[in-house]
Amino acid sequence: MERRRFLKGAALGAGAAALATPAVSQGMKTMAIVSSWPRDLPGPGTSAQRLAARITQLSEGMITTEYFASGERVRGFDAFDEVASGQAESYIAVEDYWVGKHPAFAYFAGVPFGMTTPEWNAWIHFRGGQDLWDAVGGEFGLKGLPCGGFGTQTGGWFNKEINSIADLQGLKMRTGGFGGQIMAKVGVSAVSLPGGQIYENLVSGAIDATEWVGPFADYFMKFYEAAQYYYSPGMHAPGGAVALGMNAEWWGGLSDWERSVIAAACEEENALKTYEESAKNGEYLQRLINDHGVQLRSFPDELWTAFGEAADELYDEVRDHSELARTVTDAYWESMREIGGYRKLAEVAFSQQRNRVFGI
Amino acid sequence: MERRRFLKGAALGAGAAALATPAVSQGMKTMAIVSSWPRDLPGPGTSAQRLAARITQLSEGMITTEYFASGERVRGFDAFDEVASGQAESYIAVEDYWVGKHPAFAYFAGVPFGMTTPEWNAWIHFRGGQDLWDAVGGEFGLKGLPCGGFGTQTGGWFNKEINSIADLQGLKMRTGGFGGQIMAKVGVSAVSLPGGQIYENLVSGAIDATEWVGPFADYFMKFYEAAQYYYSPGMHAPGGAVALGMNAEWWGGLSDWERSVIAAACEEENALKTYEESAKNGEYLQRLINDHGVQLRSFPDELWTAFGEAADELYDEVRDHSELARTVTDAYWESMREIGGYRKLAEVAFSQQRNRVFGI
Repeated sequence: MERRRFLKGAALGAGAAALATPAVSQGMKTMAIVSSWPRDLPGPGTSAQRLAARITQLSEGMITTEYFASGERVRGFDAFDEVASGQAESYIAVEDYWVGKHPAFAYFAGVPFGMTTPEWNAWIHFRGGQDLWDAVGGEFGLKGLPCGGFGTQTGGWFNKEINSIADLQGLKMRTGGFGGQIMAKVGVSAVSLPGGQIYENLVSGAIDATEWVGPFADYFMKFYEAAQYYYSPGMHAPGGAVALGMNAEWWGGLSDWERSVIAAACEEENALKTYEESAKNGEYLQRLINDHGVQLRSFPDELWTAFGEAADELYDEVRDHSELARTVTDAYWESMREIGGYRKLAEVAFSQQRNRVFGI
Repeated sequence: MERRRFLKGAALGAGAAALATPAVSQGMKTMAIVSSWPRDLPGPGTSAQRLAARITQLSEGMITTEYFASGERVRGFDAFDEVASGQAESYIAVEDYWVGKHPAFAYFAGVPFGMTTPEWNAWIHFRGGQDLWDAVGGEFGLKGLPCGGFGTQTGGWFNKEINSIADLQGLKMRTGGFGGQIMAKVGVSAVSLPGGQIYENLVSGAIDATEWVGPFADYFMKFYEAAQYYYSPGMHAPGGAVALGMNAEWWGGLSDWERSVIAAACEEENALKTYEESAKNGEYLQRLINDHGVQLRSFPDELWTAFGEAADELYDEVRDHSELARTVTDAYWESMREIGGYRKLAEVAFSQQRNRVFGI
């Protein structure tokens, strides 16, 4: 471990002189973070801002972050190029925004029918997921780390009940990534829109439906003003995380200590964001139902089965993209079966028994 | 935020002199950690050791940890007094070891029929759980932080099949905390034993059954040599975490930065330990079944219902202990219903559909 020496207390009179030394000569760094989220957006936005502040704090200002919300420096979808080109050190976004660059990016955000957040983190950290992420990001000069897990996302807001595949035909729905492709396969007209433009399109009737995150984050988006039926869970985003995507050359030039500070701050926020959503979703779901007349629904089995068949088709197409896409796809689904198979016998079986016995 | 100044590079010639300054005059601290786990024990032991190393690394040696495995300084169950008295700065243990001191400690380890690990962390971090933990620990001069989550634990190892309540009568089982009290209520003869003494008692026939953690951690305990039937899940430890218990006066005397380093390292390891178990449990369960002839079973509904009734009785008794025990008990179960109720609609419902559609 690299050790630095500190000037503290009376023992070393040079402390006062060090105060006046310019930051750069003391090895201090700035780290621009271009984010995909609106400033102060509850959930994703506040989590990203908390991470930015924490890196500065944990490093005692040796790495001072400069956080730019979506639109303050670049728009959300332009963050990738800004960082890959080295114009900014890092972005905060969901990696499935970049499936047009490489489809395997989706696995590092979370994919339809895939792993829940605890399962996904097990894969990333202890089953080779991070190495595969580094391989995909490396093709673009990027290094990603998970920095904000999310729970199983809701299926979305609809302006009518969805009881069958027929009800989905031609429906204009804001949904992206692999989830959008599956929806398109079953007849939905999938539309890609950044978060800041969904509400106006839903209210104007330009779209009929949208998915976003879950009750806590969704509450503040006010989708209930235009779409009353709220479906949970969704198949499209069972778990995963927001990413801190860094310029790989910049990351490689950091000291071991600097990398450990960023990694620890990311791991901490990765967990905290998940806990925060989990703590607040129940409360905000009740508010949506009680204060705003939202109708909670779940997709019938028939739809889940159709979504599953479409997903199977999609993952075959993803495999065919390239050698790397095949490697990541196969590794992901093998881990899902092993890790998810065990959780079926543990957390899931326990939850079902507890909920039965205690009337949850 | 407190800022320190660094001597780095050529700008300040005093750097070389600082090297020779004794640690104490630079504000460096040592932090003894007396652990309840055997050295290098896969799972709990390796996680605790990783945390100790990480605090030293993240603080660049400003907080240098000295890790003592169980028995190296004190035995596991003596860690509480060692830290409460100020003889050591901190322990690593499961808080339900201390139910004899105050029954509400159990809620900060995880309790029977209670919250799974993501639910429990939501309560601790965002629903007031940490404040209540501080109130209970504060009565003994302690400050606890979660530092190693665990998944839903298995129900245990038995030397015969358990098909009914009758099969449990008089069975000598190593199990502790609230889980042990529930087992006692349904007729089990519950025995308390530290981890290092379970195997010999099981092999000698002094006990008929034991619970421990889950396939990954259990594998190395070799219980399968004496007890073939492995039950999953258990009702006794659905989730929660290992704790870093610190002397509260020592914690209060740290700088904001020192506290943030310890908190971030704990949060990181709290997550990593959960991910590691989740990644390895499936693999190790297969090894237990395929290589060691272990028979996997689940408790029938009748037992779950009986366990639930015993748990109800137990929590009424816990409430009657004191005002603080009542406050913590009521807060815990209210959060369980809200957070667990939401997860039923999200992670649990999703997992059931995914597992159905994909044949998991």
